[in-house]
Amino acid sequence: MEGVDHLAHERQKAQFDVEEMKVVWAGSRHALELSDRISRLVASDPAFRKDNRTVLSRKELFKNTLRKAAYAWKRIIELRLTEEEAARLRFYVDEPAFTDLHWGMFVPAIKGQGTDEQQQKWLTLAYKMQIIGCYAQTELGHGSNVQGLETTATFDPKADEFIINSPTLTSSKWWPGGLGKIATHGVIYARLITDGQDHGVHGFIVQLRSLEDHMPLPGITIGDIGMKFGNGAYNTMDNGVLRFDNVRIPRDQMLMRVSQVTREGKYVMSNVPRQLVYGTMVYVRQTIVVDASCALSRAVTIATRYSAVRRQFGSQDGGPETQVIDYKTQQNRLFPLLASAYAFRFVGEWLKWLYTDVTQRLQANDFSTLPEAHACTAGLKSLTTSITADAIEECRKLCGGHGYLCSSGLPELIAVYVPACTYEGDNVVLLLQVARYLMKAVSQLPSGKKPVGTTAYMGRVEYLMQCRSDVQRAEDWLKPNVVLQAFEARAARMSVACAQKLAQFSNSEEGFAELSPILVEASLAHCQLIVVSKFIEKLQQDIPGKGVKEQLEALCSVYALHLLHKHSGDFLSTGTITAKQASLANDQLLSLYSKVRPNAVALVDAFNYTDHYLGSILGRYDGNVYPKLYEEAWKDPLNEYVVPDGFHEYISPMLKQQLRNARL
Amino acid sequence: MEGVDHLAHERQKAQFDVEEMKVVWAGSRHALELSDRISRLVASDPAFRKDNRTVLSRKELFKNTLRKAAYAWKRIIELRLTEEEAARLRFYVDEPAFTDLHWGMFVPAIKGQGTDEQQQKWLTLAYKMQIIGCYAQTELGHGSNVQGLETTATFDPKADEFIINSPTLTSSKWWPGGLGKIATHGVIYARLITDGQDHGVHGFIVQLRSLEDHMPLPGITIGDIGMKFGNGAYNTMDNGVLRFDNVRIPRDQMLMRVSQVTREGKYVMSNVPRQLVYGTMVYVRQTIVVDASCALSRAVTIATRYSAVRRQFGSQDGGPETQVIDYKTQQNRLFPLLASAYAFRFVGEWLKWLYTDVTQRLQANDFSTLPEAHACTAGLKSLTTSITADAIEECRKLCGGHGYLCSSGLPELIAVYVPACTYEGDNVVLLLQVARYLMKAVSQLPSGKKPVGTTAYMGRVEYLMQCRSDVQRAEDWLKPNVVLQAFEARAARMSVACAQKLAQFSNSEEGFAELSPILVEASLAHCQLIVVSKFIEKLQQDIPGKGVKEQLEALCSVYALHLLHKHSGDFLSTGTITAKQASLANDQLLSLYSKVRPNAVALVDAFNYTDHYLGSILGRYDGNVYPKLYEEAWKDPLNEYVVPDGFHEYISPMLKQQLRNARL
Repeated sequence: MEGVDHLAHERQKAQFDVEEMKVVWAGSRHALELSDRISRLVASDPAFRKDNRTVLSRKELFKNTLRKAAYAWKRIIELRLTEEEAARLRFYVDEPAFTDLHWGMFVPAIKGQGTDEQQQKWLTLAYKMQIIGCYAQTELGHGSNVQGLETTATFDPKADEFIINSPTLTSSKWWPGGLGKIATHGVIYARLITDGQDHGVHGFIVQLRSLEDHMPLPGITIGDIGMKFGNGAYNTMDNGVLRFDNVRIPRDQMLMRVSQVTREGKYVMSNVPRQLVYGTMVYVRQTIVVDASCALSRAVTIATRYSAVRRQFGSQDGGPETQVIDYKTQQNRLFPLLASAYAFRFVGEWLKWLYTDVTQRLQANDFSTLPEAHACTAGLKSLTTSITADAIEECRKLCGGHGYLCSSGLPELIAVYVPACTYEGDNVVLLLQVARYLMKAVSQLPSGKKPVGTTAYMGRVEYLMQCRSDVQRAEDWLKPNVVLQAFEARAARMSVACAQKLAQFSNSEEGFAELSPILVEASLAHCQLIVVSKFIEKLQQDIPGKGVKEQLEALCSVYALHLLHKHSGDFLSTGTITAKQASLANDQLLSLYSKVRPNAVALVDAFNYTDHYLGSILGRYDGNVYPKLYEEAWKDPLNEYVVPDGFHEYISPMLKQQLRNARL
Repeated sequence: MEGVDHLAHERQKAQFDVEEMKVVWAGSRHALELSDRISRLVASDPAFRKDNRTVLSRKELFKNTLRKAAYAWKRIIELRLTEEEAARLRFYVDEPAFTDLHWGMFVPAIKGQGTDEQQQKWLTLAYKMQIIGCYAQTELGHGSNVQGLETTATFDPKADEFIINSPTLTSSKWWPGGLGKIATHGVIYARLITDGQDHGVHGFIVQLRSLEDHMPLPGITIGDIGMKFGNGAYNTMDNGVLRFDNVRIPRDQMLMRVSQVTREGKYVMSNVPRQLVYGTMVYVRQTIVVDASCALSRAVTIATRYSAVRRQFGSQDGGPETQVIDYKTQQNRLFPLLASAYAFRFVGEWLKWLYTDVTQRLQANDFSTLPEAHACTAGLKSLTTSITADAIEECRKLCGGHGYLCSSGLPELIAVYVPACTYEGDNVVLLLQVARYLMKAVSQLPSGKKPVGTTAYMGRVEYLMQCRSDVQRAEDWLKPNVVLQAFEARAARMSVACAQKLAQFSNSEEGFAELSPILVEASLAHCQLIVVSKFIEKLQQDIPGKGVKEQLEALCSVYALHLLHKHSGDFLSTGTITAKQASLANDQLLSLYSKVRPNAVALVDAFNYTDHYLGSILGRYDGNVYPKLYEEAWKDPLNEYVVPDGFHEYISPMLKQQLRNARL
């Protein structure tokens, strides 16, 4: 059966041009070519094998990651890959490693917060990996509240040095990736203290380990924080713990782009705007949204293909049973996730544009759009990662029992993904930030200040508060304007309702705390509106290829209508739509599934993932699932011997009723 | 700090008698004494240590489980534990093992389906563990659809034997626990074929391995199916694959209580009712509901205690930061889960009673309540396991980043729990079974046939279709009758709406398939009603102890009102309540949190879990979290050496720019 495509019949059903859809998904022909080339390069190289990852012990696993990281870097040099190509290569190697933090956090931190001289000095070393950096912010006792960090950096004017110290156990740096075993340097966040005065948290470049023998430098205690969720997964990463016992660094290792400490120990702000920090946050969170669409689309690919392979029940007259993808309950769980993958892709693409736009404005000293961009990336990071984390587990369940096997690829995908809900801003804390922004926007409406960007709809609040949906038939819900107005009205009304409740409190901070559960809901409604509206905007672009636009239209409707159904309580309680209209929306949703069904396998093919990247027997391109599952089972270490280790000591005495004398 | 109770101030706040609440949770003073005694026995015995579980390789892990299982059995014999005590001991050992299947599936299958002689012969061996049994039903290609199993048992009248065979790859038995490496025997499900005729699936006792050398018997291929989700978790279990190549067993090893094959090869039904099989299902699923309350309460204990320990933000004038349990968003996520743990406990307790009742009726040849009992256990299994699986992950997220560490105990708890959503009936398939029952009940209403048991409310359908909630103030939602009527009306209206839509299809099977997504929602509404109503019934009992009843009333309201808010779309679209009433319900919910808050730690103390059973540093009784987390980190294998294995081969050449010549 090798070489046979068991899903060929599914692929023949597709009513659109898959190759053109691949371009849409990738973002451009260039991006597709790049992804395609690099993913095949990785997949075809046995050095990047990852199918044995879940049976390796922590030490074997970690050593293997070091090998892959070094090999990847060697290939990057040999093939003279561009920065963009190198990043793709690391992406397709698909294994969390210290290099992620080096390139993704250490280098950007120096770029963003270092002076030109600092960049010159440190980035030169970092770009060649002559030093390996990590990013040490969170502490054992402080995650979300960065301003509460306890590590201190006290300036000693006599020596012209900072003394970095961990005054308490809870001030131990905790979690930074790459720190535990590998990083030679770190950007360390600590409270800057000059002349007894606390200036709050600042970044410092600190060497952690000797470049000769890799031993921690004097005064530095450092180690790995231990096993994390899942097999393989993030256990390839050396998340670390770090304590400083009065470690001295030269003054010029404070990152001084925004503020400086002079030779005399004076704290001075530069004329570089502090808001730059938020620009970096927008960047990092935008990449997280794109990553969400990758993780989600990957899980959906596995669940969709296996749902087309798997048959269960419904056999008539001894014929084949029904493919589980034909069950409406399966479609009702799977297709909205498929649609969400596309939705997150497009909103991620738009965020990339937004980041460029904000950056250009910042360079022209225009800060006007930054708060809105900051709020909206925070909200979208929260929305997309929460949904993706849940969706991967839902995809696992959609694969039935076999989704529980590591060979399905889904357990590792879940375990490696879920921290995205916590890192770079806890998802609930982020939604509360969005809520603050929304409440401010509402409060400024009477002053005539026009809300900008994704909150522009608030400018039409009077209309949105009283408009009624004119849906009369299920098909009316296919009209983008109808959907958009419902989402806008719901979001606006929820925000206004919160603002009204808030106004009843004399102490607005207290009110904000008391109302936080409903504020979070209003934020979510706002963020969902953004995703829906960006999907609709995407459809207004010129999209070539037979049937491609039609498929995307169907997915856009599925995305919006499944949200509408899931949150129908919001829409109904705000009076945005009637019960009848809610019911019609669900009717329309269910009937759209028939449109998606014949295209489902082709719609996941368009993600263009190699079997190596997917890492799933259930999600194999050729659908040859059962023989491969069977084959894979025998590779488990327990199958090395027929009679298992421990049988003679423990089981045999039990069966022979000789336990009394056994030493256990 | 050792010995200091860091949560003492929380425990002092409690407004109720914790010791009496422990009795309520355990179900009786006897049950509490038993659990308390056995859990301490296990916790105090170093042989049952489990804190190293997540770093063991598969083989070490498995061998360790064999040791524990043998040791547990030895202790059971030495201490002459009763069956009840032995079961508690296995529960508190808290490690999935082949013994679970031996006692939980193999023995009950023979009890339920074996004749008296068969029971006499096989149970005698099984009770002494002279044989170890497994339960081999599911196949590589068949999970949910048991009637579609492919394994055959063909009667050979000449030899008076059955020939057990696996005709296809997909007919390989797949998943049975204990099968992979340990079981000597199994109850094997296969299609019975006599004289060329297929009589459907029946159970057979088949010896799998030699009692001498433990080698598989001729014609039997057997092994482990490989790694599963998570560290430790279910990898202690040898879920297995099994193929038969025309294996012969004596005729008397078919389980013949319900039907027989005679010496002549005739297939005969006995006068024992087939419905007995459903009785067993009710039993197994009832235990799953109780297990859900255990798993959920365990996760909630960890999240609640750590939320009281952890502080973040909100420091004023350098004072301590706010305990995260004081944030309303944290309460809004955590307290409904705490309430759900209690709700599931009480509905599980009621199901225990229901099983006894059904069994007594069956013995008196009264089958009238069986279909309703079957539907309701199926539905409650689905509801409680789905919520619990999601809730454990939510509790993990509620612990912030540290919940991602294995030392938090939550990753393993998630990984070991989630298969409950799939085994013993996929949760969606089960809700569809409930829907079938509900649609039948609705269709029989006009005939005057009174619905029984948990569907009795359907008898008042006319009233429920037109009643209006008379809630006017938030406090009205504290009245049990008000809540109950809202849940009844919502469930009844959703069922009736489904039935009306169904009636529009000429082919009712087709209609059922098309409407399955909304049928699932109607089933869920029905099941939620059951849980709410059983909680309310519990409160009508005499509950002694200062403040105990008040706390339970608050939790009952939290449980019901959080469901009402979550599913407000249902309540509003069916016209059961108004938007204003929905808003009042949420106001009431949020204000109840203040009532729960001071009692939260004591409410989880009432579960009476030992630190051994919890297996979580974040959930430690004494709240001494940070020093212990720090201590634990150093135990990771990666910390055995300061410079990690692989550094010299891979990292040093990278830092020294000598990768070109390195062999990787």
